[in-house]
Amino acid sequence: MAEHHQLSEIPTPSLVLDERRMTANIARFQKRVDALGVRARPHMKTAKSIDVAHRQLENLGPATVSTLREAEMLFEAGVKDMIYAVGIDPHKLPRVLALRDAGCDLKIVLDSLEQAEAVFEAWKAAKAKVPALIEIDSDGHRGGVSLHDDLLIAIGRKLHDAGGSLVGVLTHAGESYGVSGANAHADFAERERSAVVSAAERLRAAGLPCSIVSVGSTPTSHAARHLEGVTEIRAGVYVFFDLVMAGIGVCGTDDIAISVLTSVIGRQRSRGWVLIDAGWMALSRDRGTAGQSVDQGYGLVCDIDGKPIPDLIVSSANQEHGIVSLRPGSKAKMPELPVGTRLRILPNHACATAAQFTFYNVIPEKKGAPLEKWSRFGGW
Amino acid sequence: MAEHHQLSEIPTPSLVLDERRMTANIARFQKRVDALGVRARPHMKTAKSIDVAHRQLENLGPATVSTLREAEMLFEAGVKDMIYAVGIDPHKLPRVLALRDAGCDLKIVLDSLEQAEAVFEAWKAAKAKVPALIEIDSDGHRGGVSLHDDLLIAIGRKLHDAGGSLVGVLTHAGESYGVSGANAHADFAERERSAVVSAAERLRAAGLPCSIVSVGSTPTSHAARHLEGVTEIRAGVYVFFDLVMAGIGVCGTDDIAISVLTSVIGRQRSRGWVLIDAGWMALSRDRGTAGQSVDQGYGLVCDIDGKPIPDLIVSSANQEHGIVSLRPGSKAKMPELPVGTRLRILPNHACATAAQFTFYNVIPEKKGAPLEKWSRFGGW
Repeated sequence: MAEHHQLSEIPTPSLVLDERRMTANIARFQKRVDALGVRARPHMKTAKSIDVAHRQLENLGPATVSTLREAEMLFEAGVKDMIYAVGIDPHKLPRVLALRDAGCDLKIVLDSLEQAEAVFEAWKAAKAKVPALIEIDSDGHRGGVSLHDDLLIAIGRKLHDAGGSLVGVLTHAGESYGVSGANAHADFAERERSAVVSAAERLRAAGLPCSIVSVGSTPTSHAARHLEGVTEIRAGVYVFFDLVMAGIGVCGTDDIAISVLTSVIGRQRSRGWVLIDAGWMALSRDRGTAGQSVDQGYGLVCDIDGKPIPDLIVSSANQEHGIVSLRPGSKAKMPELPVGTRLRILPNHACATAAQFTFYNVIPEKKGAPLEKWSRFGGW
Repeated sequence: MAEHHQLSEIPTPSLVLDERRMTANIARFQKRVDALGVRARPHMKTAKSIDVAHRQLENLGPATVSTLREAEMLFEAGVKDMIYAVGIDPHKLPRVLALRDAGCDLKIVLDSLEQAEAVFEAWKAAKAKVPALIEIDSDGHRGGVSLHDDLLIAIGRKLHDAGGSLVGVLTHAGESYGVSGANAHADFAERERSAVVSAAERLRAAGLPCSIVSVGSTPTSHAARHLEGVTEIRAGVYVFFDLVMAGIGVCGTDDIAISVLTSVIGRQRSRGWVLIDAGWMALSRDRGTAGQSVDQGYGLVCDIDGKPIPDLIVSSANQEHGIVSLRPGSKAKMPELPVGTRLRILPNHACATAAQFTFYNVIPEKKGAPLEKWSRFGGW
């Protein structure tokens, strides 16, 4: 098989992207979004790749970013409508303004009067509008204003005074990653929905505008029963999926589109170990499945064609060494994996593992086509 | 203070390196090595920086690397004597040979007959010598041959047949990170020493050469009582130190030379949280202190001048969000940290945190001098 042949030749460790799986994941998400009658605003933080963005964003439409570097890179590639979905540090406003001056419709997120004051000051100083969304706390996960808090209206009013900078409300059900199954995720989706829709109603009742009502996490977007009153969904990791998402039932392991190609570099027979050249530098330190019902260690071991080897996981990782062994309690037989054997490791967390690399080795959808290289960027 | 002034201006999150602390750490290590009467072979895997290498390596002398990319970058900068201290994957031999052809004295490490066979084949094919060290397992941490195993002599003989490629033995007491205090580390140092010295003696008794006898980890190199029979010490993280090393008593927190500069981006007063713009993308997912007596979360919080704030840690991290709170059980008062406040986070694991960045913002030793930028590289 051509793909096998090529994966046997590139250096290890390397990041591999299965385009066919990615395309299916994108189609599945888009179908969900269409069925829910909202707009998709995919999160660029997972792939950080212009090549992937072209496939995720219809006509380079709305996107979400987690860093201003993502915003700058995507704007250069032609994406205009973006939300920078991390609470704004006032020091970053000049960079936001520079992007807006250049024609980028970048919106910011905040949840405090101090941040709204900074937007107000920017408006006074330069008459520059910085459209902002108020973050709503729907599940106690990290940031956001409670929808019942008077602060919501106070922030809204301060923003509205700042040249009409209030454009909407946004929430993220980060806690949905901690529960398993479509029903539990649908309940979180309803918490997201009701929180932002109620917040939007409160703002509107106070005479304030609120055109964007934004929700999203990968688990909730795949499970929501309906999204009445919501205008858009953000989600990120759905594009690749990973073992954490498989562990809570959002996908299967055969939907996971990225893996780390690695070589066997040693064995410790008496301990039942095989050593590989993918340590935490390649796999990341993410142990997201540690708290799930099936702990996948630092990743699930597959053969070079991507087929999982029963019960084989990366049980431990040093910087450039991974230790592969059978899952504790397994009755499977440790396979013979001579030095030089190539394996592929499915990651716990796609965002974290992909971030350890500067490019994807893409197995194209077209059977037998040569591997492609798609670059990715990092930094802030 | 000028340094304070500058750290208030650069973007966040950023990686900060305190040159004065690094210089002191390098001097301390060199003093140890000199007192032990051996040669230093610092590990480049921590800093991955030519600027730092110039300060760590006297006259660009012996170095240890964890990737061939490090070897290539350092060779380009003038470093010639290197050990690639990760078990060789036979696919990588052509790259090793290319470096050697160019004049780089790169040595490899192995612990199996299959790898020795690959060296033998390379020698037969190209009459190219690939000097190799046999890895000895001194503590069951990951790779290496037991010094009592007949395999040791078999590998040695196969290498010696391959154009005299056997040059030494090497071990690494990775388990020394799991114990605390100079005495415990000295015991591991003695395990390292006695394992490699005995292995060297066995090889020599079999008529095989063994000129390099190499030990090293940061804890053992700082605690060894004597190193009779050893020729060199490798160590990496000593150059920066980190919370894991402080937690096992190898250094104090005020020796830690790197930190992540971050900005406050929000607060959740009712939960006692402050949100910062350093999440796991900046801090890494490393939770190396989780198993220590003091769990530092994702890092210890300092003010902009690097002074720790009592009991304040990064208790949780999302991709671009860190949650700062008081250590569980603390009676300290949560400080006021308004949005925009700049903080510095001491990392659990210097190698992992530095790897999330492409350059260091260096606070020079010279008081009042402007910040410098030193680049670092990644990849394989």
